[in-house]
Amino acid sequence: MSNTTGSIADFNEFRTRMNESIFAAGNLTINRFFALDGRTYEAGALGVKTKEMLGLVSSMVLRCDDCITYHVIRCHEEGVTPEEFYEIFAVGLVVGGSIVIPHLRRAVARLEELEAAKGSA
Amino acid sequence: MSNTTGSIADFNEFRTRMNESIFAAGNLTINRFFALDGRTYEAGALGVKTKEMLGLVSSMVLRCDDCITYHVIRCHEEGVTPEEFYEIFAVGLVVGGSIVIPHLRRAVARLEELEAAKGSA
Amino acid sequence: MSNTTGSIADFNEFRTRMNESIFAAGNLTINRFFALDGRTYEAGALGVKTKEMLGLVSSMVLRCDDCITYHVIRCHEEGVTPEEFYEIFAVGLVVGGSIVIPHLRRAVARLEELEAAKGSA
Amino acid sequence: MSNTTGSIADFNEFRTRMNESIFAAGNLTINRFFALDGRTYEAGALGVKTKEMLGLVSSMVLRCDDCITYHVIRCHEEGVTPEEFYEIFAVGLVVGGSIVIPHLRRAVARLEELEAAKGSA
Amino acid sequence: MSNTTGSIADFNEFRTRMNESIFAAGNLTINRFFALDGRTYEAGALGVKTKEMLGLVSSMVLRCDDCITYHVIRCHEEGVTPEEFYEIFAVGLVVGGSIVIPHLRRAVARLEELEAAKGSA
Amino acid sequence: MSNTTGSIADFNEFRTRMNESIFAAGNLTINRFFALDGRTYEAGALGVKTKEMLGLVSSMVLRCDDCITYHVIRCHEEGVTPEEFYEIFAVGLVVGGSIVIPHLRRAVARLEELEAAKGSA
Repeated sequence: MSNTTGSIADFNEFRTRMNESIFAAGNLTINRFFALDGRTYEAGALGVKTKEMLGLVSSMVLRCDDCITYHVIRCHEEGVTPEEFYEIFAVGLVVGGSIVIPHLRRAVARLEELEAAKGSA
Repeated sequence: MSNTTGSIADFNEFRTRMNESIFAAGNLTINRFFALDGRTYEAGALGVKTKEMLGLVSSMVLRCDDCITYHVIRCHEEGVTPEEFYEIFAVGLVVGGSIVIPHLRRAVARLEELEAAKGSA
Repeated sequence: MSNTTGSIADFNEFRTRMNESIFAAGNLTINRFFALDGRTYEAGALGVKTKEMLGLVSSMVLRCDDCITYHVIRCHEEGVTPEEFYEIFAVGLVVGGSIVIPHLRRAVARLEELEAAKGSA
Repeated sequence: MSNTTGSIADFNEFRTRMNESIFAAGNLTINRFFALDGRTYEAGALGVKTKEMLGLVSSMVLRCDDCITYHVIRCHEEGVTPEEFYEIFAVGLVVGGSIVIPHLRRAVARLEELEAAKGSA
Repeated sequence: MSNTTGSIADFNEFRTRMNESIFAAGNLTINRFFALDGRTYEAGALGVKTKEMLGLVSSMVLRCDDCITYHVIRCHEEGVTPEEFYEIFAVGLVVGGSIVIPHLRRAVARLEELEAAKGSA
Repeated sequence: MSNTTGSIADFNEFRTRMNESIFAAGNLTINRFFALDGRTYEAGALGVKTKEMLGLVSSMVLRCDDCITYHVIRCHEEGVTPEEFYEIFAVGLVVGGSIVIPHLRRAVARLEELEAAKGSA
């Protein structure tokens, strides 16, 4: 994702379309991995919100913009507040270092996009 | 950390001794970073337990055994249960892949070491 | 590479142009590295197809989109079938974890681009 | 794994023991991941030997000593020859850079350990 | 950053705008990290030029395009010559491997952009 | 390298022995890579000391203990002072984050080992 990347709608469209291609290819290992990935964030001893926060910070320190976008969206849906988002970002930044900063900027841009959409709804 | 690594007591002794050497060297940037690192996990909008869980999952996906040991100890102190530990491990494993497994094994060994110490106290 | 990246033709044009700039700069270490990189995938005890598959899975787990694009093209030229591609992707996904998924989506998009070009030839 | 690490027997003992602890903990996501990990290297469009070579090169560029040890053992069982091992190592070294060298040294030590065991059998 | 990324002016505009959003959010850990990041490259026992070269090579081996762009700009301001740039790139390439090459291409494109701007000034 | 790792003499002995095994195997790509690796740090537009500092900071942010040990030794031979070492460490720490700290501790232990050897010479 560059600075001038597409919208969250673009992200979702590409994600959905390619997931369908991958699923249709019928590789059993890959399809089971995708199912397992979904299960991982379901409620258990830890709640969904906590698990999504764990997914977000993991995505930040591994510096994967698409993964960050996905978990920012999910955390937002689970009611993570802006103050909480910034505390997750702070852990990611201190653990991962200044190399995380470009991804932090794009995460904040995503968060602003989500807040703007909520405000205009 | 190899499979046949030292105990948590060894880990803590080396950590404390080297932190003192680093602090004594008087590099202002490094000393401020260490102070900032400590602050990052203090209670804020998110509680200490949640922040330590974020630190643990970050350490797993980045595959840093010493960091995992540190956060396993801190999570254990904050009352993270075995079931919760394994759910954090599950997120780290699915996000980071099978490359995380050797670190998962050592994390579990640390957890068993802590549980054994508690049982014998 | 973002979701809305350029075509394989764009990729090749930029790659060729910058390789020429790099070569012209005359840094001996860099130029020898490029030569060595080319040699690495030549037939030896292992065939070219196997070596390109090794290059592809390495690029996936290291999450480098341009490297993936390059090795998808080369594997395709060496006759790797769609079923084989997906088995390489499966190893990359399980070893590298869900963090690989965005790169998997883009790899599949590249593969579809190559298959479409073949179909229309 | 340090330079003066334990033997392959030590590696296998720790690996088996901790896998049993992990399995006994009963986390469904983790247990399914382990099952999926095993499936990934079964014969399909690509043979087992090829898949194990893909696992080995992935482990090298991600610089995971335990994963390298595991796949060196498995490749050796599948009949990968010393010349083939070195060509896999060459791809891993050129893709991953000099940072891979310490892991290459330990991979070669593992290979020598396996060859010595075969010679003395 | 894709092959067809924006200009340095675009990079700077996005960087400045998002840094302002981040600062305004008022997270103390993050704001202190940003201040510390700035301090790190100030003259000390090592000069600013040397420190910026350290920042550049670190960004290359960690494969962060935005970080590379930032340090290429700063090194250029500090008088790093094209020959010196290529020697930094050579260290980054040999340490980090062929996976660094796509980032090297984009670093060279940035350097050409800066040289062209200087020539036209 | 664990906390209770071997001495620099152990490191050098293992390194030399395995390099000889690797060289003797006669893989042309690997042997050329090793030669190229050596050349990379020779004097050019940048001096040897600067290049070794670049190698050290790269090794820190990539978190490779053996690579750090090697470059700490070489930097020490080139006359890098303790104050300069700590400024290199500071760049590595801020760029790479707290995940670098365990490696920083071991780097400092190596530096102390070298200073102690010098003092006792």
